[in-house]
Amino acid sequence: MTFTFRDNIEKMAGYTPGFQPDDPAAVKINTNENPYPPSPKVFEALRNLDALSLQRYPRVYWDQFRQVASKVHSVRPEQVICGNGADELLSMLVRCCCDQSRPMAYPVPTYTLYPALADIQDCPTIEIPWAQDCRIPQELFKTDAALTFLCNPNAPTATFVPVDEIARLAQSLDSVLAVDEAYVDFSDDNCLRLLERFDNVIVLRSLSKGYSLAGLRFGYGLASERIIDAMIKVKDSYNVNVATQAAAAAALADRDYFRTNVEKIKQQRTRLTTALRELGFEVPESQTNFLLVRVTELSAPQIYEELTRRNIYIRYFKTAGLQDRLRITVGTAQQNDALLGALAEVLNK
Amino acid sequence: MTFTFRDNIEKMAGYTPGFQPDDPAAVKINTNENPYPPSPKVFEALRNLDALSLQRYPRVYWDQFRQVASKVHSVRPEQVICGNGADELLSMLVRCCCDQSRPMAYPVPTYTLYPALADIQDCPTIEIPWAQDCRIPQELFKTDAALTFLCNPNAPTATFVPVDEIARLAQSLDSVLAVDEAYVDFSDDNCLRLLERFDNVIVLRSLSKGYSLAGLRFGYGLASERIIDAMIKVKDSYNVNVATQAAAAAALADRDYFRTNVEKIKQQRTRLTTALRELGFEVPESQTNFLLVRVTELSAPQIYEELTRRNIYIRYFKTAGLQDRLRITVGTAQQNDALLGALAEVLNK
Repeated sequence: MTFTFRDNIEKMAGYTPGFQPDDPAAVKINTNENPYPPSPKVFEALRNLDALSLQRYPRVYWDQFRQVASKVHSVRPEQVICGNGADELLSMLVRCCCDQSRPMAYPVPTYTLYPALADIQDCPTIEIPWAQDCRIPQELFKTDAALTFLCNPNAPTATFVPVDEIARLAQSLDSVLAVDEAYVDFSDDNCLRLLERFDNVIVLRSLSKGYSLAGLRFGYGLASERIIDAMIKVKDSYNVNVATQAAAAAALADRDYFRTNVEKIKQQRTRLTTALRELGFEVPESQTNFLLVRVTELSAPQIYEELTRRNIYIRYFKTAGLQDRLRITVGTAQQNDALLGALAEVLNK
Repeated sequence: MTFTFRDNIEKMAGYTPGFQPDDPAAVKINTNENPYPPSPKVFEALRNLDALSLQRYPRVYWDQFRQVASKVHSVRPEQVICGNGADELLSMLVRCCCDQSRPMAYPVPTYTLYPALADIQDCPTIEIPWAQDCRIPQELFKTDAALTFLCNPNAPTATFVPVDEIARLAQSLDSVLAVDEAYVDFSDDNCLRLLERFDNVIVLRSLSKGYSLAGLRFGYGLASERIIDAMIKVKDSYNVNVATQAAAAAALADRDYFRTNVEKIKQQRTRLTTALRELGFEVPESQTNFLLVRVTELSAPQIYEELTRRNIYIRYFKTAGLQDRLRITVGTAQQNDALLGALAEVLNK
């Protein structure tokens, strides 16, 4: 049998997952997970699942989660869409908007999943370097893209574009603007208020960061019903299972736990920023749960190697423009102690 | 803002979910769910999830489930792919194989998701009516499809194509043959042995039927690594969450529970087939957990209405060729009693 897949699929390199250390003692600050456990309500929701809800098909429109999200974010339930991670929602958007004659656009550097989704969909990409200080580049206001991604705060730069500037972008575009707010739990502002003015904007959220649920793979989108209805057409009939829906609703509803969790990380972020600067790194302010720091002594791969030998896992990049940077997730006080101690040793300080 | 989605998406009708009665006392035999609870091991797995596994990203390649599936089905772990329902795997296959110049083919009537996926991907469909007695139509052996779907046993006909005939189809095709075995838990045979001979065959399985886990949305595929590797390219990086993976692995591993559960349904299927024939329906043998029966008195919608009034939910079809049929899920002994009692009343027998 000789058979082929589509050319774009045959040509794709395929995703190489990042290194995941199995050692539970490892200081794992390489993938921007939350170092604190999720809300106890999540475990309660999973324990309380009854047999009948597992036997039967789930609610198609995520009734339970929509109710909670509707209250928390002051939107109509019909403005909420759920996915297996915000990644699934990104994929749905690409399938709704893009094809060979309908490109996607985004500033770079940013989340590397966007071009991977373009490869899968076989659509052109319009990549425009960020303007000075990670402001929106002028060219992004006037592309012929059918879909524009703006990761805000951006990964891996940890920078935040002011909401007014994003409003101007939404206003100027005749296409869908997806604001990927995966890291917004740690920011001073967010784009939700744009939904009242712009029916071409979708705001994407994740439970992976502020809610400590990277393992649950749950994301949601908030947008006009015009956008939600199109995405519902391309989604799997019952895309999010009952266990995930119950756990996600419980996590989002527990506002006190969420705020306390996020506050702890912001405090550690301040502390880590100061301490890394004292060690000689250039550390821009972060609006996320990670820092992108510029190395001034040794090289990024050298420091990465030295830390790995000490069972501490961070990230460095081969991307042009990022080769002198390290991305470090904000960990617990103890994890940050371990990191800072190891760095002082490596740098002889 | 004026913005548009792709033409094929704008034109799509969108999925209308089937009616799901909320009344727990309803006899719900309309969507082929399993009437018995899932294995106790599933609840144990969900209870035992620890905080760290929820905090961190899941294993990319579903290690835990692959180990179990590898043992149960005597395949290599690398031949296993997991999805949020077999539906997600069908969608991945379409994205790997089909586009405007690469059609999909399937015999009809069959699972209505196949044309919906073609609409989303904007690829042509080649629909060929089943041959006499639901054998594979000759035309299916020689299409120019890039992907052929064969639902076996087929929904909604409940019929089974012999594996030898499917081997001949696999042999004749220069493209991928996806054998959708969603209902195979209730059949006398299956296509797993074809994997040893054909690298263009993928067998798709579901935990929704024999494992009583429709609410968990978990499906898996077994195929050559050539097919699995292509599908991995288009999947979301971490498509199945840790709770789902743990529950699915526990369910598949509990062979005794599975066999007992399936045996109970097969016994009820035999009993229901006989009783419905005695009531005057034409009832072909079923290789699934449902019966497709031909109505000989009153019309299918009339009987549907009468049963609905009695809080019993079954399905009828508006599709040409199926308008005199009712699809009835095999329920528990009590549910089947209720159905048979109500039918006797409706038909004055």
